[in-house]
Amino acid sequence: MAKENKAFVKEITPQSEDFSRWYLDVIQKADLMDYSPVRGCIVFKPDAYEMWEACQRELDKEFKRTGHRNAYFPLFIPESFFQKEKEHVEGFNPELPWVTEAGGDKLEERLAIRPTSETMIGHMYAQWIQSYRDLPLLLNQWANVVRWEKRTLPFLRTSEFLWQEGHTAHASEEEARQETMQMLDIYTKFVEEFLAVPVIRGQKTPSEKFAGAVDTYSIEAMMKDGKALQAGTSHFLGQNFAKGFDIQYLDKDNQLKYVYTTSWGISTRLLGALIMVHGDDRGLVLPPKVAPTQVVIIPIGPQKARAAVVEAADSLFAQLRDAGIRVRMDARDDVSPGWKFNEYEMRGIPVRLEIGPRDLENRQVVLVRRDTGEKTFVPLDELNTALPKLLDDIQVNMFETAKKFREEHSYVANTLDELVGYINDQRGFVLAGWCGSAECEKAVKDACSATSRNIPFEAPAQPAHCVNCQQPAKHAVWFAKSY
Amino acid sequence: MAKENKAFVKEITPQSEDFSRWYLDVIQKADLMDYSPVRGCIVFKPDAYEMWEACQRELDKEFKRTGHRNAYFPLFIPESFFQKEKEHVEGFNPELPWVTEAGGDKLEERLAIRPTSETMIGHMYAQWIQSYRDLPLLLNQWANVVRWEKRTLPFLRTSEFLWQEGHTAHASEEEARQETMQMLDIYTKFVEEFLAVPVIRGQKTPSEKFAGAVDTYSIEAMMKDGKALQAGTSHFLGQNFAKGFDIQYLDKDNQLKYVYTTSWGISTRLLGALIMVHGDDRGLVLPPKVAPTQVVIIPIGPQKARAAVVEAADSLFAQLRDAGIRVRMDARDDVSPGWKFNEYEMRGIPVRLEIGPRDLENRQVVLVRRDTGEKTFVPLDELNTALPKLLDDIQVNMFETAKKFREEHSYVANTLDELVGYINDQRGFVLAGWCGSAECEKAVKDACSATSRNIPFEAPAQPAHCVNCQQPAKHAVWFAKSY
Repeated sequence: MAKENKAFVKEITPQSEDFSRWYLDVIQKADLMDYSPVRGCIVFKPDAYEMWEACQRELDKEFKRTGHRNAYFPLFIPESFFQKEKEHVEGFNPELPWVTEAGGDKLEERLAIRPTSETMIGHMYAQWIQSYRDLPLLLNQWANVVRWEKRTLPFLRTSEFLWQEGHTAHASEEEARQETMQMLDIYTKFVEEFLAVPVIRGQKTPSEKFAGAVDTYSIEAMMKDGKALQAGTSHFLGQNFAKGFDIQYLDKDNQLKYVYTTSWGISTRLLGALIMVHGDDRGLVLPPKVAPTQVVIIPIGPQKARAAVVEAADSLFAQLRDAGIRVRMDARDDVSPGWKFNEYEMRGIPVRLEIGPRDLENRQVVLVRRDTGEKTFVPLDELNTALPKLLDDIQVNMFETAKKFREEHSYVANTLDELVGYINDQRGFVLAGWCGSAECEKAVKDACSATSRNIPFEAPAQPAHCVNCQQPAKHAVWFAKSY
Repeated sequence: MAKENKAFVKEITPQSEDFSRWYLDVIQKADLMDYSPVRGCIVFKPDAYEMWEACQRELDKEFKRTGHRNAYFPLFIPESFFQKEKEHVEGFNPELPWVTEAGGDKLEERLAIRPTSETMIGHMYAQWIQSYRDLPLLLNQWANVVRWEKRTLPFLRTSEFLWQEGHTAHASEEEARQETMQMLDIYTKFVEEFLAVPVIRGQKTPSEKFAGAVDTYSIEAMMKDGKALQAGTSHFLGQNFAKGFDIQYLDKDNQLKYVYTTSWGISTRLLGALIMVHGDDRGLVLPPKVAPTQVVIIPIGPQKARAAVVEAADSLFAQLRDAGIRVRMDARDDVSPGWKFNEYEMRGIPVRLEIGPRDLENRQVVLVRRDTGEKTFVPLDELNTALPKLLDDIQVNMFETAKKFREEHSYVANTLDELVGYINDQRGFVLAGWCGSAECEKAVKDACSATSRNIPFEAPAQPAHCVNCQQPAKHAVWFAKSY
């Protein structure tokens, strides 16, 4: 048994040795994905896909609660559509895959595979929106999109990925801006409470905003290697796409006016965030709300007592399942309990429930938390209240732990040298003053590959001078290396 | 008011005048779809997409109940993959769109957009399946697929469509055949009970089976113009893909063996079936189980009584919503009740609930069924039991009505002349004896464009001779024109 464990654990590279290697090891060992024969495209295996389904259910509920409806728009976008919004085409053109032949014929106009659907949806909205009565128009789409990236990384940056993209049209700028912020709020709550990933909310600098947006807002999370991951974005598009696609409505005053649009999205890269924020050297650590399996039951003890233990475990399984807990049982007797402990720790299952002959006698079970390793004995007749409470505790503790980690890896820099030192030596997020010029932003990037993450709504400090040029700072900006 | 109604109804072509026109009118008027700028691709608008979501929820539950899990495989399939199963490439090659450039470069190998995923999934299964312990492998995928069809028709045959494709691998032929039939059973129950569409279950003839399958089973539904629509298929693929993609496992006897695979799918064409089976000259008629809105509340009566009526309607709305009924209220006062009646009849909402001042006095409401037009007065305090019962009655009645229609348009032919007469003059399904030769099947098609739909598991008659060659019949076959 000791040998099995050791052999097994050896297969995951420790985070401190090589975080990237750790990540690639753990997503394969935990059976979340596999590489496909197509460059940069992965297979989402059931455990990963079910986490995505859980995200979908949770977010979809919020989208519908706030008046949005789902629709589905075509995968293909005619080449000419990309010409209609200048910044948009520049931003996305380098990443597009093109269909040039179909059904045996060469196409007259090339079709892009959608990298995002502002253009197609803008084209349709122009036909659907005629009058102020048609506004606001609040649609969302769950879909696959493709961006032919140079460097890819499973979940975080894949050629094809799954996402949702909301697209709304409004009569007034104020209403569109409210929508933009409402969706950022929904993303914040979802990522923090459902995925237990703390985020920094703020506005992107002009050089980092979405191609075609007036303003882009983001939520940024810190991974365990100190790098940032943009976990969701919400864009105020102003009238850029309305003008590009001629989306006009007849207002109450009988004037034709352009609408204001927004778009907002989160994607399967959140699965990567989950893994990199919570995982440890033993594997995944999954927050209970998103975990495909919340509790795994493992019967233990000698062969002669096995029948009675397995019977009790079976009945516990049914009891917990009926209580709405996502439970799994592993009563295999051709692998040892120790091997199973490692296996389910590696898969990140939040709670392990052990039951053996002595527990039976004492009418209790053992609960082991994945996040802290803490072990508690719980009387059988208290299980149905103790377990949901434990799952809640784990969810909260994981969020708090991640938040503490982020705080411990956040710095304030007054000079470029300081900033570079923090980025290279300490790893993490560095808050710095910024004069607002693209040159100073670029100077930071050139010095240490850190980019501006966002201008936070709530900064822990307000540096007086720009970290690069030392002119008065307009904003406090978070800088970090990022995925 | 009369004028509004008339003007409105005029816009839908009567079914008897031109069924195809009726269909195209109704799907646009009822706001289910719009044409997109890409050939053969439609936009699924919210009412249609929500029906698809309802189908997904219902089927997904059944898939999971029977041990399947969801996963997601890449959209792109390398060209070489299609060469590995000979029949498969011949069947699908003519319909493939090809990506030849991406990220600014010409690709070394062209990538097809998936028309179905047997090849990609076969490739992955070959890596995942090593031992008998890995079997059965039971996965399903919800995805978009593309087939570049020559003739397209919204929902029924679009270049891009949404579907699910199940793919399973088994150790034995028997188990794979059981799986094939289990899924056909699940489809049958779903289409008949959830969509209220009666189907004929049977096996496809060799010329109509899936490209690469050993045996294909289908469920076939009759549209109101007498044409058939294949509503779902389940394929026993034998070892064809296992051999093409080298999916072998080490059995208990230490021998390497090829697995047996199945695949099965239903798609958004079911939405077209729904519409064509139940719709009438006033528009859609939706079965309550799949209807995005089950009940629409319309307050009526003179302006002076309006406030009290709307208040009562509001409270009914909350009451029904809390009872789990999908309810909508239309209290607009800038359109007439008559206009609303037509509008929601056209959209196929199963029940209209009217409430006016006199109803308030009598503590009752009026319920009007969309399927029969029947009107009943229901006391307010019985509504929460009466309404679910009425919705159930409508669901059952719609199924029975469709079944009766199909029976009234089903014929038995002994000669080719008879068969052609039924197809051309009566429209509908014709059961005929068949010797089993592809020539005789083709003779029927050449004579009247009817194709074999399937060899039913339960035929209402067993003709003794082949309808074409008059040799002894091997099978009774349903022939029909089809979508």
